[in-house]
Amino acid sequence: MGLRARGLAERVIGIGRDTARLAQAERQGAIDSATTDLARGVAQADVVVVCTPVTQIAANAVRAAECGSEHVLVTDAGSTKQQIVEAVERSPRGQATFVGAHPIAGSERMGVAFARADLFEEHACVLTPTGRTPRDRVNRARDIWAGLGCRIIEMDAQSHDEALALTSHMPHAVAAALAAAIPGELLHLAAGAYRDGTRVANADAALWAGVLSQNRNAVLRALATFQDQLDACHRALEANDPTALRDWWASAQVRRGLFDALNSVPADEPVARRA
Amino acid sequence: MGLRARGLAERVIGIGRDTARLAQAERQGAIDSATTDLARGVAQADVVVVCTPVTQIAANAVRAAECGSEHVLVTDAGSTKQQIVEAVERSPRGQATFVGAHPIAGSERMGVAFARADLFEEHACVLTPTGRTPRDRVNRARDIWAGLGCRIIEMDAQSHDEALALTSHMPHAVAAALAAAIPGELLHLAAGAYRDGTRVANADAALWAGVLSQNRNAVLRALATFQDQLDACHRALEANDPTALRDWWASAQVRRGLFDALNSVPADEPVARRA
Repeated sequence: MGLRARGLAERVIGIGRDTARLAQAERQGAIDSATTDLARGVAQADVVVVCTPVTQIAANAVRAAECGSEHVLVTDAGSTKQQIVEAVERSPRGQATFVGAHPIAGSERMGVAFARADLFEEHACVLTPTGRTPRDRVNRARDIWAGLGCRIIEMDAQSHDEALALTSHMPHAVAAALAAAIPGELLHLAAGAYRDGTRVANADAALWAGVLSQNRNAVLRALATFQDQLDACHRALEANDPTALRDWWASAQVRRGLFDALNSVPADEPVARRA
Repeated sequence: MGLRARGLAERVIGIGRDTARLAQAERQGAIDSATTDLARGVAQADVVVVCTPVTQIAANAVRAAECGSEHVLVTDAGSTKQQIVEAVERSPRGQATFVGAHPIAGSERMGVAFARADLFEEHACVLTPTGRTPRDRVNRARDIWAGLGCRIIEMDAQSHDEALALTSHMPHAVAAALAAAIPGELLHLAAGAYRDGTRVANADAALWAGVLSQNRNAVLRALATFQDQLDACHRALEANDPTALRDWWASAQVRRGLFDALNSVPADEPVARRA
């Protein structure tokens, strides 16, 4: 939808398994035409964007690279990169055509009904080319993702996975743990902190089991970093030390304030006055 | 603002320490008149709603009860109840006039600039009268909070604090731990999960140190419940068991789905189709 809205593609071909969903995507104007035949869809494409769950991206990307034309660019939108990039580069055609990408935007909702043409605007997109990725493919990948409104960041796949374990994967695991921790019979007494803190727990279970598993070592390290903060809260509470608790909270608030400063707060939300 | 919008009060008097803020509240139409003199403001009131931080509510409520007229009702909006109710009931006038209340709605923002007349609509309000609270005061408290659009739930203060430790206080602590756990230099790679999961970490540090401290035993138990869920995720990751991880996530998703069912999802958000 973004490619079409911005006139970045002459034609967008949807490739999928489910003809009903492909028809919905066509009705909704997300794609110009559809096919369930990957080889056929890819043969006509200059660029292939693989948007399957992370556990399937490498296989899909290799097949797209092998079925694609000589000049095809294959990129993806997966939340993990190292395993995918390594697997794709084991295929010579994969290595010659693939640029790993992770546009850091999305929602917990699945399906074309939740698609938005402006999803990527103002969001970071990490590209993870290797020393073997042809530079022309990197440049074309930059053009596509930047064309959709992304800020492009290049880094190696391992650094990406280390960073995203902290900024996204671990926070998703924390949200799921929080969602599960509240007994159902008390949910009528839950409000904003639970609602917002668990929003992403609504995301697909198989999809997120895949992301966490593909990046398990880095996620385990990120969970340990989170645990240190939780333990600091626990210690201050056990010691019955409101000053330590306030200082701990204030340090969290500063970090969150930094995030808000990086992501301009909408104009309808004036800066809070502190008592 | 809610009382005025719904015509529930002839006059709303703002009592505070800061004349500039009181003037802002008056300009914004949140109050009809203002005073920094608690005794004077309270003397004219049928109902006093104490909206100070939880560590100050008991002292403010007792003073309001002692300065108020014979028939005054004193209620509050504090996130903890047991310590407050016990402290207020040590005063005979407090015991004769006070009905503890916790409208479960709010935001991380402070100050009248963020006030909304409809904040309490469709939200639960827990009232915590004791065996000593006069029934007429309970009924008047029910009328006021129900008049603002709340669903009234009566429970004892200890049950309230146990429940809210799980549904609100612990989730706030988790949000602050999450906010603090992400290194500042990686925040440009954080997106929705961090943004939503840490929103309430923007709340005032002293205010929340007070809430967590006043309810520390129940919050420590709630943290242990959360820890169990986090450990389940950790174990599945360590065992490299994507099936266990998926099942764990699915159980969290079911709980979050129950929350959504209790709180009707807006019509512009169709139910997600699962792959």
